[in-house]
Amino acid sequence: MSSLRGSRRGLLTAAGGLVAGAGAGVAARAAPGEAIPKPPVTAEAFWGAHQAGIVTPPQSHCYFAAFDLTTDSRDDVIDLLRAWTDAAARMTSGQTARAMGDDLDIPGPDSADAVGLPTARLTLTFGFGPGLFVKDGKDRYGLAGSRPPPLIDLPRFNGDQLVPEKTGGDLSIQACADDPLVAFHAVRQLARMSHDAADLRWAQTGFTTRPADGSTPRNLMGFKDGTHSPELVDKAVWVGDDGPAWMRGGSYLVVRRIRMALEHWDRTKVSFQEQTMGRHKYSGAPLGLKNEFEPLGLDRNDADENPIIPENAHVRLGNAAENGTAEILRRGYSYNDGVNFTAERWPPWRQGMEYDAGLLFMCYQTDPRTGFVRMYEKMARFDMLNQYVTHTGGGLFACPGGVREGEFIGQGLFGSV
Amino acid sequence: MSSLRGSRRGLLTAAGGLVAGAGAGVAARAAPGEAIPKPPVTAEAFWGAHQAGIVTPPQSHCYFAAFDLTTDSRDDVIDLLRAWTDAAARMTSGQTARAMGDDLDIPGPDSADAVGLPTARLTLTFGFGPGLFVKDGKDRYGLAGSRPPPLIDLPRFNGDQLVPEKTGGDLSIQACADDPLVAFHAVRQLARMSHDAADLRWAQTGFTTRPADGSTPRNLMGFKDGTHSPELVDKAVWVGDDGPAWMRGGSYLVVRRIRMALEHWDRTKVSFQEQTMGRHKYSGAPLGLKNEFEPLGLDRNDADENPIIPENAHVRLGNAAENGTAEILRRGYSYNDGVNFTAERWPPWRQGMEYDAGLLFMCYQTDPRTGFVRMYEKMARFDMLNQYVTHTGGGLFACPGGVREGEFIGQGLFGSV
Repeated sequence: MSSLRGSRRGLLTAAGGLVAGAGAGVAARAAPGEAIPKPPVTAEAFWGAHQAGIVTPPQSHCYFAAFDLTTDSRDDVIDLLRAWTDAAARMTSGQTARAMGDDLDIPGPDSADAVGLPTARLTLTFGFGPGLFVKDGKDRYGLAGSRPPPLIDLPRFNGDQLVPEKTGGDLSIQACADDPLVAFHAVRQLARMSHDAADLRWAQTGFTTRPADGSTPRNLMGFKDGTHSPELVDKAVWVGDDGPAWMRGGSYLVVRRIRMALEHWDRTKVSFQEQTMGRHKYSGAPLGLKNEFEPLGLDRNDADENPIIPENAHVRLGNAAENGTAEILRRGYSYNDGVNFTAERWPPWRQGMEYDAGLLFMCYQTDPRTGFVRMYEKMARFDMLNQYVTHTGGGLFACPGGVREGEFIGQGLFGSV
Repeated sequence: MSSLRGSRRGLLTAAGGLVAGAGAGVAARAAPGEAIPKPPVTAEAFWGAHQAGIVTPPQSHCYFAAFDLTTDSRDDVIDLLRAWTDAAARMTSGQTARAMGDDLDIPGPDSADAVGLPTARLTLTFGFGPGLFVKDGKDRYGLAGSRPPPLIDLPRFNGDQLVPEKTGGDLSIQACADDPLVAFHAVRQLARMSHDAADLRWAQTGFTTRPADGSTPRNLMGFKDGTHSPELVDKAVWVGDDGPAWMRGGSYLVVRRIRMALEHWDRTKVSFQEQTMGRHKYSGAPLGLKNEFEPLGLDRNDADENPIIPENAHVRLGNAAENGTAEILRRGYSYNDGVNFTAERWPPWRQGMEYDAGLLFMCYQTDPRTGFVRMYEKMARFDMLNQYVTHTGGGLFACPGGVREGEFIGQGLFGSV
């Protein structure tokens, strides 16, 4: 990875801004002195006690990417994380990934597709998968002893249809921005820096729109998604003093790519959709109630002593208090990958092109063992919603605490470097 | 398709707005009288001399969908086009696809995922593929004699790697909106209405962002895309009196899903990228010039009498005047479908996960034979850009003239109905 080291040195010594100079190195036919307008900055802070993109109010677009580490060198991993940190700090503040310089006879230090676009509240949130610590039984980087207990290998849940090409990864980047190109651009620049150390494994785009009146966004099922959030967000999300130092102020991210059988859902009567979810479709209120933000009232019964919110309704099985699980902070995006060929063996016994669309479910928590895993083990078996959704990919990543200027992401994990 | 007829009648007699009433038909556990806020309207007119979405300033998101007709009945096709027209008029003016009513014991007349979102300048542009006229040698709907000569079967171009699952279609819908969910929602509602007459064949999302200063958007290659547009847009786009009556004021749409080898491109020096395109990357100016909107000056030579813009530069081969082709109006969107497994036999001889991203190229013209086809036949053979791009899908569609209220899209094609 010497080329990366070289470019990092260049990066650190070059002037900060995006400037194409009138220098003598410009190719014969190129117009020298081309000025690139500096975009307006609508930035989320990169440096801080926590990584941005976790409790940051959701931006409208997401590009999530997972990488496989291909190097055997601990130094390469460190160099990569340094380069990613530097570039992330630049891009989240509206700069190109690396200083542009004036040499046109090299690949561009930045692919330039986001030039002129606003920062769009870009956040880049980095995570470490189990494979950074141990992979195929090998301790590649001397980190096996540092693998934090919450970073488990996710169990196989009932109904899982995970495909390897959309599952796992040794490193993760969650790029969120109010522009899809800004999010993709950022990951693409980081991926370019990883060529000798890591390869892209999978990636997924997502989008969400919060209505202008600030009300809860709806997912592709037409239901409001995100009504419930933990009462004590900090307590639910941030790893405390019981975690290793490098994870304090960090969080554990569970990602699930959840395909929705929208054709099937759209043929289901609304009253059954509501029983399935446990909420009214249009208002978002718990079944039998009027207002979206009323408590669920899971103990309410009808005249026949049947629970008004069914035993296997999505909202009951996802309720932390009801199920003895820890609260999680959801950060969901819809995804839309066009249509794919699908054959169904169950009603409505169809085959043909179906939407490859659904939910890029992401959630943050202090410990997935008491959070997502405990919650979803029950949901995977009993949730009425399962007849409409299929988990096709995902992963678990330890997102280190925030970065102070001059450090690199997860630096504490690597000791003194 | 009797169910569609039934729902259409329901639609035409029901009140226009999106209202969930307090009626007696509401299911026992449902909260009656749930009010849904009416979204603000930022609408493009649906009725008019031309279909919207062709010369409409590009919205930031697109969802393009192509359908196969599965019915043998001409009446089914007419009913479908009527239903699509009614629903399109509603949705482009900010309403649900069909009136909602108060019956929750049926599938929702609208999937409700876009409830609360603005109209987002939604346009829905309909097109007819060759298969509406003749398919596998069969004249299914008595329209074979009405197939307009410009609606050819596209030839196989040099380098084409079209996959059937992303190519062709008997009907097309181009949904453009300033919100990805609004565009997808619209097509999804129209697809629901087609169940007995047509199946989705393929679909593709796209996005573009015009910088806040109004300058030309960049595509994923980092170059400005769309600098050139025809001087006489109306002349380039709209079919005139030489076309059949139903196509007058209409246009022919060529769609190409163009995958970009971004990893390869990103490793190419900027000076060679510029030679390939024939323009400077950052300014967008023709090679050797300063300003984006200067004429190309294709006859300019350097001191050695070599052309400054190379003979096989993209911009030269795409230039209508230079190549004796008719002007076309491009309407391009970037697409980003994550990463796919790819094996390359040519340098850089790689295999692994690569971006499945590129350009959803769409262009409108009066006649594709003198427009896209003539232009691209030469480009497909000589364009330097071909080493970085692969056409993987697309189609040709005749987009009828605009619709007057009370008519349905393409009505003139079907005679008096």
